[in-house]
Amino acid sequence: MIEDTHVSLAHGNGGRLMRALIEEVFARHLADPALDTGADAVPVALPAGEIVVTTDGFTVQPLSFPGGDIGALAVHGTVNDLAVAGARPLYLTLAALIEEGLEIARLESIVASLAGAARAAGVRVVAGDTKVLPRGQGGGIYLALTGIGVRPPGCGLGLGRIETGDAVLVSGPVGDHGIAVMLAREEFGLSGDVVSDAASVLPLTAAIAVLPGLRFMRDPTRGGLATVAHEIARGAGRAVELDEAAIPVRGTTRAVCDMLGYDPLYLASEGRVVAVAAPAAAAAILAAWRALPEGEGAAIIGAIGAAAPADAPVLLRTRIGGARTLPELESDPLPRIC
Amino acid sequence: MIEDTHVSLAHGNGGRLMRALIEEVFARHLADPALDTGADAVPVALPAGEIVVTTDGFTVQPLSFPGGDIGALAVHGTVNDLAVAGARPLYLTLAALIEEGLEIARLESIVASLAGAARAAGVRVVAGDTKVLPRGQGGGIYLALTGIGVRPPGCGLGLGRIETGDAVLVSGPVGDHGIAVMLAREEFGLSGDVVSDAASVLPLTAAIAVLPGLRFMRDPTRGGLATVAHEIARGAGRAVELDEAAIPVRGTTRAVCDMLGYDPLYLASEGRVVAVAAPAAAAAILAAWRALPEGEGAAIIGAIGAAAPADAPVLLRTRIGGARTLPELESDPLPRIC
Repeated sequence: MIEDTHVSLAHGNGGRLMRALIEEVFARHLADPALDTGADAVPVALPAGEIVVTTDGFTVQPLSFPGGDIGALAVHGTVNDLAVAGARPLYLTLAALIEEGLEIARLESIVASLAGAARAAGVRVVAGDTKVLPRGQGGGIYLALTGIGVRPPGCGLGLGRIETGDAVLVSGPVGDHGIAVMLAREEFGLSGDVVSDAASVLPLTAAIAVLPGLRFMRDPTRGGLATVAHEIARGAGRAVELDEAAIPVRGTTRAVCDMLGYDPLYLASEGRVVAVAAPAAAAAILAAWRALPEGEGAAIIGAIGAAAPADAPVLLRTRIGGARTLPELESDPLPRIC
Repeated sequence: MIEDTHVSLAHGNGGRLMRALIEEVFARHLADPALDTGADAVPVALPAGEIVVTTDGFTVQPLSFPGGDIGALAVHGTVNDLAVAGARPLYLTLAALIEEGLEIARLESIVASLAGAARAAGVRVVAGDTKVLPRGQGGGIYLALTGIGVRPPGCGLGLGRIETGDAVLVSGPVGDHGIAVMLAREEFGLSGDVVSDAASVLPLTAAIAVLPGLRFMRDPTRGGLATVAHEIARGAGRAVELDEAAIPVRGTTRAVCDMLGYDPLYLASEGRVVAVAAPAAAAAILAAWRALPEGEGAAIIGAIGAAAPADAPVLLRTRIGGARTLPELESDPLPRIC
């Protein structure tokens, strides 16, 4: 039984209160027989295939925003890193750093949201740890998750497989997550109906992972589409040419960006996929994505060029027929969006 | 090239500065070809055997203390959870939550220490993530690690294997880590020469894991030996009877405890192992530990009793011939020691 309404330092000391918090909040919502809260380390059964791992920290502020909260976001962010690597997510581990004074009810809601997102993605939380941070040193709660997944041997996705002439696609409008979180902060006196795109991208990656000609996938989170374009250019050693008119951006997101001077190409999406594919495969990928509710806004947005000039590897062809280089992100437009 | 002397929010935004920080600080010190900083998820090769996972958050304050720092502590804490589960640690993932304003030189020193501890334990850091927390919301740096290890199938260690009459052992003096961290805070106007026991327990667990009659191992971290005794009592459904005179505590640690009113049985050790074993196996475990520099202070400290009374499952036989129950830890004697 949790006797308190707020988290105290004693909930992190290893004793009775910590055990109650773990059993009544974490274990109860996660409800997985493999989550043995009395074990130092737990066995996991792994199927045949190539095992892949990823890890991610989550510090989003505010903890809840239209379309999600830090619990679901953490699952989606971790699962998505496995999904874009061509893997099926199997297991998660969860380290929670909780600030003294966080309402237990708030914590429960976050853990329930996390548990629901994990169930929906078919992934099991098998190990956890909680620490309590002194009041004023924790931003409410931080989460760090590690994901373990499996993919077919020789999956063959990677930056090194990208060739000149390949097509660049995105599964839907970009920047909604960044703007939704920013509006939820209410720092700018703006309100709007932008909902975060945060979601599992597993339906999107599973639909195209089997298609021949797929070279590479990535979710455009921190730093947005422009940052993924730079990662592609650097990893592939080739220019990335994006077509501004083809890049989907929702009207409300664009309006907020225009008002505040943000560029949506640098804002995070947490439920989109950028894919690079052989030109002959692009139409099939587009069709596969558009057949899904998650991918109805998908578009071909550019192509891979020849060897990239080191100082300007990402080019944006503008609506008015010109072209400009997209610089690598420098200062932080919207911190703590994930 | 890192151009700055301190971490800024821009080091967490996904752009150029974050890439520089990851490449110049993390990747350079960790120096593992499997640590592909351009990948969303990385493949890991796993040998035959039962795969086990564990996760742990680290928030120790101050970040450095006599005998260690948060970097080495994080590796030891994670590796030790695998070691006491009878596993050989293979891989780590690392999520770093860094407070804006942390000196880059300080961060480098922590990452170098972490990398050194990982190398010494024979474990590879294969995936990482960094986030930057706004000034005042981060305590310098928090780390969250996940460990993946392998153990022989049917390893057979567990609380459920413990029987009445079994011996309880500890590999060395308890409480040094808690006192060393507390003295490093300089809150009490005390100084002393207590050095943390934080270390990898792999030599200790490897030396006894093969011995017949070993039932269970655990490292007495948060909540100390008394908390492990409660976990044993609860998990085994039996009383734990400890012999106060047999429990090794260093003189300086005991002196500080006496002065400040702490009980060393509730203070963290980060480099000790508590083991439960069949009575016939206790002497062999003691001999194996004492043959190691890490285990020269090992002792048999108690025994498993019959079915435990629910309200007093842990009994301490005192030096003067009496007995008292050791309660489960309630309030926090020393927060943020790991």
